[in-house]
This record gives sequence, structure tokens and C-alpha cells, in this order.
Amino acid sequence: MPETVEITDPDDPRLADYRDLRDVELRKSLEVEHGLFLAEGEKVVRRAVEAGHDARSFLMAPRWLEGLDDVISRSAGPCYVMPERLIEQVTGFHVHRGALASLQRRPLPAIDAVLGQARSVLVLEDLVDHTNVGAVFRSGAALGFDAVLLAPRCADPLYRRSIKVGMGAVFTTPWTRLPDWYDALPDLSARGFITVALTLSSDSVPIEDAVAGVDRLALVLGSEGHGLSSRWEASADRRAIIPMRAGIDSLNVAAASAVACYAAARR
Amino acid sequence: MPETVEITDPDDPRLADYRDLRDVELRKSLEVEHGLFLAEGEKVVRRAVEAGHDARSFLMAPRWLEGLDDVISRSAGPCYVMPERLIEQVTGFHVHRGALASLQRRPLPAIDAVLGQARSVLVLEDLVDHTNVGAVFRSGAALGFDAVLLAPRCADPLYRRSIKVGMGAVFTTPWTRLPDWYDALPDLSARGFITVALTLSSDSVPIEDAVAGVDRLALVLGSEGHGLSSRWEASADRRAIIPMRAGIDSLNVAAASAVACYAAARR
Repeated sequence: MPETVEITDPDDPRLADYRDLRDVELRKSLEVEHGLFLAEGEKVVRRAVEAGHDARSFLMAPRWLEGLDDVISRSAGPCYVMPERLIEQVTGFHVHRGALASLQRRPLPAIDAVLGQARSVLVLEDLVDHTNVGAVFRSGAALGFDAVLLAPRCADPLYRRSIKVGMGAVFTTPWTRLPDWYDALPDLSARGFITVALTLSSDSVPIEDAVAGVDRLALVLGSEGHGLSSRWEASADRRAIIPMRAGIDSLNVAAASAVACYAAARR
Repeated sequence: MPETVEITDPDDPRLADYRDLRDVELRKSLEVEHGLFLAEGEKVVRRAVEAGHDARSFLMAPRWLEGLDDVISRSAGPCYVMPERLIEQVTGFHVHRGALASLQRRPLPAIDAVLGQARSVLVLEDLVDHTNVGAVFRSGAALGFDAVLLAPRCADPLYRRSIKVGMGAVFTTPWTRLPDWYDALPDLSARGFITVALTLSSDSVPIEDAVAGVDRLALVLGSEGHGLSSRWEASADRRAIIPMRAGIDSLNVAAASAVACYAAARR
């Protein structure tokens, strides 16, 4: 068994990384300031460490120690152990999947490194919902997309909810932020990609037609509320829709991205 | 403006229908006991009433009254008005979209009435997550499915979260519960449907092949954790998969249902 540190006081300052996990705004500033992020659940914690993220610490109830023995042993950070009901007092909710880890963020890679030989890339503009970001990463990974690029204001894929919903796909799929929002799509075109924006535009064609015969594809998705910015809509090479029954409010972005990835995978 | 009742005390017994909306277990028993359900947000409240559900009451801050004027006026139930911060004390959280309504459930229709001339039907076994149930209703409605059938233990589509995520699709799509779990799929086959179960089975074929040429289709989805029961898997006419990249944990049920509905819509 790895070396562990038992803690009995929920106010112990060593647990600062794990406080108030439900307070999104507080977490954002805390995580940015310290360059950390949180992973939850045995499988996701394992994937984060295996992807090369250094653990600042772990926090879990005794029964999760055995399953993560090897992961904890090879990490430099301490493993704090508490009964589940005390962990709940620290985090502010019941942690269903037991194990938590606080991990170090790494510098984001350059776009060239992320694109590499990628043939299918997802490009997310300003998604605000962490659940949707995680779902898009997961669907993209399952349906054969090689990389993800995020606009500067897109929600954080290393936020706890994103990672959890994405089942850790954010650790296996290369991704980075686009430094330049305005020319992001023309830049991709210049790199040899056909950019296809999912949007209700007067010249949108069915997604299957938009991706037909495309070699390097960049599939572009907009925010939940207002969709793509007019700049991104206009600067994409093609605009596409998922054909739908009249009178329906459209698919949500997670469902739409799954369908579009499926159509793209079969091009 | 409709007649309204101002309430200043969050403990007022007339607000009983709106208490502790975050407590899933409490809500389940309360809602079953009183045959009620809750709708949240102007658009969804409107759709629920327009679909014929009687309003027991409404609860909202003054600024939402005007937009729902006609809906409230034609309902028999009272409209309680409170400042937003007091509503929050009643419900236990910040109600982002303002208006709430407590509505009367109606007897579930017979299967014959739901199936009618339906050509494409979704059949959900034991989904446990209300968000997923709502997402499946929404995707099904957008992608041309005509009806939904639920196994006896599938999560409630009239639960607040289901309705909200589904954007009210539960009010526009005919649905009911299957009384007989064991023979549900053979019964559908006897009615002229080809039942296609989405499941990882040794004889599963790609979804596109499974639905090719099918006239009346029943697309069958299992629970989030363990998938379909062995009875449903074995008693379906066909088993199908969404082709995926190796090593991925699969799509979640909401994404998988969107892809399968899309493939089915193009059969």
C-alpha cells in the first residue's frame, strides 16, 4: 500500500485544493491561480496520471486505496485519507466515485503539435457548459476525431465536470486553445483543412453533403445559446445542418456534435 | 394581466408543491402522491398547458407575468407571485428561467393510441438519469421519431429535469409506459414493428445496416450503467452497434440515441 496521511479535521489547510467543489466561480479562480485541476473517480484519476499530469495530492476514503495503489505510489504528492462523510464536508457534496486527485496543469501545446497528422479535428467556439464540453470530447474520441481546438472563451475541458462527463477523453485527445479568435478558421484553411461550421445559415447544406470527399476536416461548433459568431459562420469554408423535423428547437450541442461526428466518420 | 396572489412568507402552505426541488427522492414521492409535476421556464410552462395539462398553480416573480399572461388567464389554478430571492428559499435553488408551474398529470394513454400510425418509435428500458430521458425525447422529436415507450422502471419523463432538458418534447411526442416488461419487444414485433436493440452483442451489426429497408421501426435503448437486460437484448429482432474507435468507453446514451435516430431517419 502507498504511504498515506490520515486527516480528521475537515478544516485542515492541506485540503485547500478540494474545498467547495460546487462553487463554479470560486473553483475557476482557485484553479487558475494555482494551475491545478481536479479529477474524480478511480478511472479518471488513473487516466490523468497516466497522461503525465503530476498529482499535487490525492484525497479518498480508505476503500479506494487498493485500486489506485500503483498510481499513488508513483506520484510525488501525498495521499490524504478521510472517512467519506468528512470528505463530503470538505467538498460540499457526496463524492459518488470515491477518489479525488488534485493535478497540475501543463502548458498548452502549440497548434502544430496538436494538429500533427490529424485528419479530423473538432473546433469549439464559445461553449459555456462544462458538461457539453466533456460530452463533445467523448463523442469525438469515440467517433474517430483526432484533436480538439478551443476558442479563447470556450469552457475549460479540465474542469471537474468536463473531465467526468468526458470519461477522461480530454487526457487521450490532443487539444489546445486557439490564440487568435478572429482568423482561427482561415488559418485552418491555410493549413489544408476544410472548415465545416454547423449552423443554420441560408447556404447550409446537409452535414453528409458538406463532408463528402473531404480529406482534412475541421468541424466547427458554436455556443449553446446563440450558436456561432457571425465571424466564424462567415469565415468557414462550408456551412452545414443536421436535417430535422420542422417545428423542433433543434438538437442540443452534445447531440448535434455526436451526429455530425458520426456523419463525418463515414465520409 | 391575470389575477395573481402575492405571497410574502416562504413557509406559506400554498407553496407546498414547490418545495425542495433539488431533493429527488422527496419530489418523487410528493409528485406521485399528488399526481402532479413541475414545469420550469416560460416556454416549457406554455407548452405543458397547451398540451392540455391543468395547472394546479403557478409561481413566479413579477417580471414573468406579462409573457405568460394568456396561459395564466385561461387556467383555473392561482398564480402566486413572489420576489425571486423568496422563491429561491422555497425551491432551494436559483430558478434561472423564472416561471414555475405545478401541473396535473393525466392518465397514461394505451399503447394502441400512442402507436397509431407511428413509423418510428423509441423504446427505453431502464434509464435512470432524468437528463438522459429528456435528451432522448428531444433528439427523437428533432430527428423524426413519432412516439416513445417506456419500460416500467424507466425514469420519469415528467420530472422537472427531464422536461427542461427535453425542451418540452415530452408534451409534443406521444408516449406511455409498457405494462408488460417481459414480452414488450415480442409484442411490438407482433404489431408489425422491427425491434432494433442498440447493444454490444456478438451478432450486432452497424446501425445503418440494421435499419436499412425497415418500415415500422422500434429502436430500443438500455440503461446508462449496464445497458439492456439480457431478456430485451435476446428478444429484439435485431441487435445493432454504432461503429466506434477501439479503446473508447462508448458514447453516452444521449449521444448514442441521437446518432441512432439520425441513422434511422435516413433509412
